Amino acid sequence: MTDFDDIPALMHNMGARARAATSQLAKAGTTQKNAALNAAAAALRASVPELLEANAKDVTFGEEKGLSAAMIDRLVLDESRIEAIAQGLEAIVALPDPVGDVLANWQRPNGLDISRVRVPLGVIGVIYESRPNVTVDAGSLCLKAGNAVILRGGSDALNTSKALHACMQAGLDHVGLPVDAVQLIDSPDRALVGAMLGHATGFDVIVPRGGKSLVERVQNESRVPVFAHLEGICHIYVDGGADVQMAAKIIANAKMRRPGVCGAVETVLIDKALAAKAADILGSVEAAGCTLKVDPIIAATLPDAERASDEDWSTEYLAPILSVAAVDGLDGALDHIERYGSGHTESIITESADTANAFLKRCDSAIVMHNASTQFADGGEFGMGAEIGIATGRMHARGPVGLEQLTSFQYQVRGTGQTRP
Amino acid sequence: MTDFDDIPALMHNMGARARAATSQLAKAGTTQKNAALNAAAAALRASVPELLEANAKDVTFGEEKGLSAAMIDRLVLDESRIEAIAQGLEAIVALPDPVGDVLANWQRPNGLDISRVRVPLGVIGVIYESRPNVTVDAGSLCLKAGNAVILRGGSDALNTSKALHACMQAGLDHVGLPVDAVQLIDSPDRALVGAMLGHATGFDVIVPRGGKSLVERVQNESRVPVFAHLEGICHIYVDGGADVQMAAKIIANAKMRRPGVCGAVETVLIDKALAAKAADILGSVEAAGCTLKVDPIIAATLPDAERASDEDWSTEYLAPILSVAAVDGLDGALDHIERYGSGHTESIITESADTANAFLKRCDSAIVMHNASTQFADGGEFGMGAEIGIATGRMHARGPVGLEQLTSFQYQVRGTGQTRP
Repeated sequence: MTDFDDIPALMHNMGARARAATSQLAKAGTTQKNAALNAAAAALRASVPELLEANAKDVTFGEEKGLSAAMIDRLVLDESRIEAIAQGLEAIVALPDPVGDVLANWQRPNGLDISRVRVPLGVIGVIYESRPNVTVDAGSLCLKAGNAVILRGGSDALNTSKALHACMQAGLDHVGLPVDAVQLIDSPDRALVGAMLGHATGFDVIVPRGGKSLVERVQNESRVPVFAHLEGICHIYVDGGADVQMAAKIIANAKMRRPGVCGAVETVLIDKALAAKAADILGSVEAAGCTLKVDPIIAATLPDAERASDEDWSTEYLAPILSVAAVDGLDGALDHIERYGSGHTESIITESADTANAFLKRCDSAIVMHNASTQFADGGEFGMGAEIGIATGRMHARGPVGLEQLTSFQYQVRGTGQTRP
Repeated sequence: MTDFDDIPALMHNMGARARAATSQLAKAGTTQKNAALNAAAAALRASVPELLEANAKDVTFGEEKGLSAAMIDRLVLDESRIEAIAQGLEAIVALPDPVGDVLANWQRPNGLDISRVRVPLGVIGVIYESRPNVTVDAGSLCLKAGNAVILRGGSDALNTSKALHACMQAGLDHVGLPVDAVQLIDSPDRALVGAMLGHATGFDVIVPRGGKSLVERVQNESRVPVFAHLEGICHIYVDGGADVQMAAKIIANAKMRRPGVCGAVETVLIDKALAAKAADILGSVEAAGCTLKVDPIIAATLPDAERASDEDWSTEYLAPILSVAAVDGLDGALDHIERYGSGHTESIITESADTANAFLKRCDSAIVMHNASTQFADGGEFGMGAEIGIATGRMHARGPVGLEQLTSFQYQVRGTGQTRP
């Protein structure tokens, strides 16, 4: 039984076991890691009754607690969702193993041969909320890159997470890898999150997966580097040189394909030169059911639209609502984005290659786009396979965080007896 | 006049001005940044009398305070040292500008073109001790990579640092770049260091340059990511398959070339199979004036050598002292390094390519070497030009931290109207 009374000691113990597991993981080849993931998928498929039983406990408890229907839906597992989680494991098996990749190689005049080689990052902490599949998705992504991971799921899904975690450990055990490579914090005590965030030497990075309040807490309290984005206040700038039809089509997609994802556009900036065409630019997104909140200049051509308040420019709606402002060309757009943006994803619509290049060069966000929907801000769409999240920090990982971003590197120097003069 | 009474407000103000400078720096091209560095070099050469006068104040104060001769030597400037600092600026002008480099480029099946492009890292804090040249060396390296930098030098060199900093700002001003791009904290108050370390949103990274106690404080207190190494407890493992003469030559160089640098070897591990040849392996380093501290097995062949205590294995001597242990082959060497090493630099001496490859793969240090002196652990020797230090962390930068490691990246996505299905 775990002793939850001495939380710092518990966290140090888990961290030390995770760190010890990393040396075995570093030695493990791709074949062994993939075998563990496949064995975990098999264990999931063989454990459907146990998984459903554990999940039923969480669902019952959640209903008694009065969780919203949306939250219950996030929590609930059925056979097809379990099969999807198992297939997710197999998708990670199919991804190339980044460990051992030679990132660069060069020779020095004295004959030394220097390589920069990918190695695992180390110990990763993942803090998430009520989606139990994160236990497997994040755990397997970290493992494939050779890392140990300590998972801290939401208390509402604790029984389900424990059952899923048991399958992951069964997979590790099946191939002789240490089960400490994937650990789950088996308690709903919120103090454990604080202990994770404060354990600067235990974790190499913490990844929060969840809503703004979780990410905010992690960013504010963590002594450990964090891969995260707090908000996705994404902009589309419709330049004076834009193809208006293309702009309309991209805006409708960027907002309405899935209004609740972090890459959904929240504010459209229209070059004043095109303000008279606002109705054409915004027609598609409005027809798709989006509410517009517009500034006075845009209101001149869209008199029925709701007026935006100052607060709208810094609001991530995550809903079918779009704020719209007229700006003074490229400089005006960049000023607005610098002032209100969250550094996530911005796109310019224009037929001018020069203006597009200036926007891409001068806009300081993790992802900048030309003539494309902001909903492409996603590791899968970038061709990275799975992602653990999107980062707006500037250190190590930025944009979609996939397998490669979950690695570090080392320098390997090969000589023939060289000494330094 | 600066108000040093409200330290958090002062630090936030400096941070905000540095952040504001970054947008102008991001727009500045290589030519303008280089012109600023050349103008700073010219300002240094034109300010020799003022620099010597400021430096004389620090030296007098240091002597009154009773600083050691070594510390005074570190502090003192003369015409040739000022010329060397100016030439250091010109050497950074000569380095390629990493900003704008396309790190990767690929196309997606839907026609999207994705590039990963280097951009400046942002705002860098540098905390250093009594070497006033760091004001210029670190400031110019950060600037060349498009970053704003806030410098906090040691109080013993404050007048000199201020005079050097004035030349850097003259260079910026000369070419129309914001002087806030290179700021100096103009007060010896140690609370300002705490304010830097606690200002999580103000700095993207902190680089401590100095002794172990400074680095330790920064690592323990910082809420900001840190590029640093606490110690360089570097190992050379002499494998059973080593060329004994090569081992002797490399060990002598790795210790005695400069015993005080972080890449100097501190412990030699000798395969038990070669223990009888310890005298041959260690003869050169001993002849060069190094004191040996040996374990019982090595003592059998070197009976006159001092015995090592347990503490020796985790001691960074930074002096002509070397600890020597016999180990059970490669596994024994790796176990010893994992237990006592600091993750900096380790080298294996062997003629066996297989054993060398196993060592390079399994040894988890920032730099691992085969048949080469650990004193090559240096950005210049790696061909990176100047370095701001060596990092043993696993995030973002590892090993020598040069211009490229002082950058971040962004994704630039070019489309032709794509929307996400």
